[in-house]
Amino acid sequence: MRQIVIIGAGLIGTSIGLAATKNGLTCTFVDSNPRHQALATQLCGSGGSVFADEEVDLVVVATTVPELANVVLDALNQYPKAIVIDIGSVKTKVLLEVSLKVPSNDLSRYLGTHPMAGREITGPEGARSDLFAGRAWAICPHEGSNQADVASIEELIRSFGATAYQMKSEAHDEEVALVSHLPQLLASLLAGSLHGELSLAGQGLRDMVRIADSDPLLWSGILSGNQQAIKPLLRQISKQIDQLVDLNLSRESVERVIAAGVVGKSTIPGKHGGVDRDYAKLPVVISDKPGQLAALFAICGEIGVNIEDLSIEHSPAQATGLITLFVAQGDLSTLINELSGRGWEVHP
Amino acid sequence: MRQIVIIGAGLIGTSIGLAATKNGLTCTFVDSNPRHQALATQLCGSGGSVFADEEVDLVVVATTVPELANVVLDALNQYPKAIVIDIGSVKTKVLLEVSLKVPSNDLSRYLGTHPMAGREITGPEGARSDLFAGRAWAICPHEGSNQADVASIEELIRSFGATAYQMKSEAHDEEVALVSHLPQLLASLLAGSLHGELSLAGQGLRDMVRIADSDPLLWSGILSGNQQAIKPLLRQISKQIDQLVDLNLSRESVERVIAAGVVGKSTIPGKHGGVDRDYAKLPVVISDKPGQLAALFAICGEIGVNIEDLSIEHSPAQATGLITLFVAQGDLSTLINELSGRGWEVHP
Repeated sequence: MRQIVIIGAGLIGTSIGLAATKNGLTCTFVDSNPRHQALATQLCGSGGSVFADEEVDLVVVATTVPELANVVLDALNQYPKAIVIDIGSVKTKVLLEVSLKVPSNDLSRYLGTHPMAGREITGPEGARSDLFAGRAWAICPHEGSNQADVASIEELIRSFGATAYQMKSEAHDEEVALVSHLPQLLASLLAGSLHGELSLAGQGLRDMVRIADSDPLLWSGILSGNQQAIKPLLRQISKQIDQLVDLNLSRESVERVIAAGVVGKSTIPGKHGGVDRDYAKLPVVISDKPGQLAALFAICGEIGVNIEDLSIEHSPAQATGLITLFVAQGDLSTLINELSGRGWEVHP
Repeated sequence: MRQIVIIGAGLIGTSIGLAATKNGLTCTFVDSNPRHQALATQLCGSGGSVFADEEVDLVVVATTVPELANVVLDALNQYPKAIVIDIGSVKTKVLLEVSLKVPSNDLSRYLGTHPMAGREITGPEGARSDLFAGRAWAICPHEGSNQADVASIEELIRSFGATAYQMKSEAHDEEVALVSHLPQLLASLLAGSLHGELSLAGQGLRDMVRIADSDPLLWSGILSGNQQAIKPLLRQISKQIDQLVDLNLSRESVERVIAAGVVGKSTIPGKHGGVDRDYAKLPVVISDKPGQLAALFAICGEIGVNIEDLSIEHSPAQATGLITLFVAQGDLSTLINELSGRGWEVHP
């Protein structure tokens, strides 16, 4: 695989171009937005190459969801020897639309994929060659898929630093409905309910609406394209809400919902995939001035304790903050001793 | 105000004891759990004092929500000269129950309050004298409130480092329904929907279910006690969900929901209250090994740039991370120059 055509020079398409170029592949961009096409081409260096259609090895379709199927169909026609992949957030609908319109011979060259990567900055300006490093990347082979093609796409994905997960398109759509589409809708619905002064708002609310800043056009395409998988989840939530209301939020009814949430939350895999490493938490009081975090992390670096994750709690008008450090269980006592020995207020 | 009785030696009650003791007040604890009572007493030093009932200046009722009204009533009877405050998460129900059962003369001594503070560690073990520093603390005077009492409670709250917000109990209940109770229910409902392998789960989902780890017993008391304010919000969410389902998540219907969320999110006040300071964000690539954060924050400290907030993005199997620093707009260009000049990969 050496010559790549990338259709759609947005964040994902351009980042794929950067990662591919870094790995010695040559790519060219196609985008209806001339500024995006020019910027992506410039960023990639090799991005201005012109290939004969017959010599294209791979076409990456990186448009918005509603356009995917048609662009994939055109690409299968135009590039007779290329593997054509798309990177859209929904997979079943695209596969269905493509398979209805191409001969099975051509369908074997199509493969749906979905990198679980994104940034708050969209467009080619946000592109990074390491956007996929450490991310999950779903691959959804279909019955007619060519196994050698699937293997070479997996290899490409691994070369970008991502982890490939093979799954059926239906399984993919059901999982993203649960881990991405339902959370997006609930965050937006919650944020959309907000009104008034909210002087009592704290970190819980802020976390819940962080993703509510999303692009309505982009997301309407995604969610609408995955309606089959999302609707049963929404119906289930709505039913549970109605039950709570009907029971006047009786203690028993609320207790059931909260308890089910505690169990459900524990099913999310940990930071490094697979088994949750069960980090120890250490809350540390910091004052809100320059140098405090630096001093804190300098000590951690010095004593060789890796901060696996951290959270800063803050609320309106807060001058002192509480930072919670997440470290390996084995590092906790060292960290407590070293920090409290140096005058830090820790709350193990 | 010098002698305080604290009924309920949990996280909040014991923290109030610690903060009051630090300010030179004397307090004694009452708790049906002897271990909690002993620990709180021990932690506070002054906490073992025995007062004559007539000499108690303040009673703080810090039990769970369902017990509040009865304990407040008992306290008003037992301590004839004391101001009696509670610190429960719902206010209207308690005020109503108390006012139905005491003479208005005694009611004037009751004041409902609600500190917006909490920790993941509950019980007296989690108590901290600085738990309220920088937090909002709602005070809900009623028609019969004694203004001098309200002023002295405000002063006490300020002495704990908190910011007092006066509001009617109904306004309080409506606001916490929106900023705390509805988010809790949606987080729990979302977490309760989770099942399967979830290898594609990312930070969005993790943020949305962070608070789903809550105590079912504690929260069923809170939410059930505020059902009047929560039910209209739940009905509204359920109605919007049903509309989305009925319209098969049409692009227009989804776009409306997402766009309304973008607007709603912008109504949340910023970290320091009042006007959102509109921090600049700077994403920086870090590798997942000791010393990286230390080095990064050392530079920030050195150049005098205060990190107002930060977030670390992580997802399954991620080896490299992306940390987003939030700084004052005026500090952004300095930070970009200094970091990139020292070889850090920044993505402004």
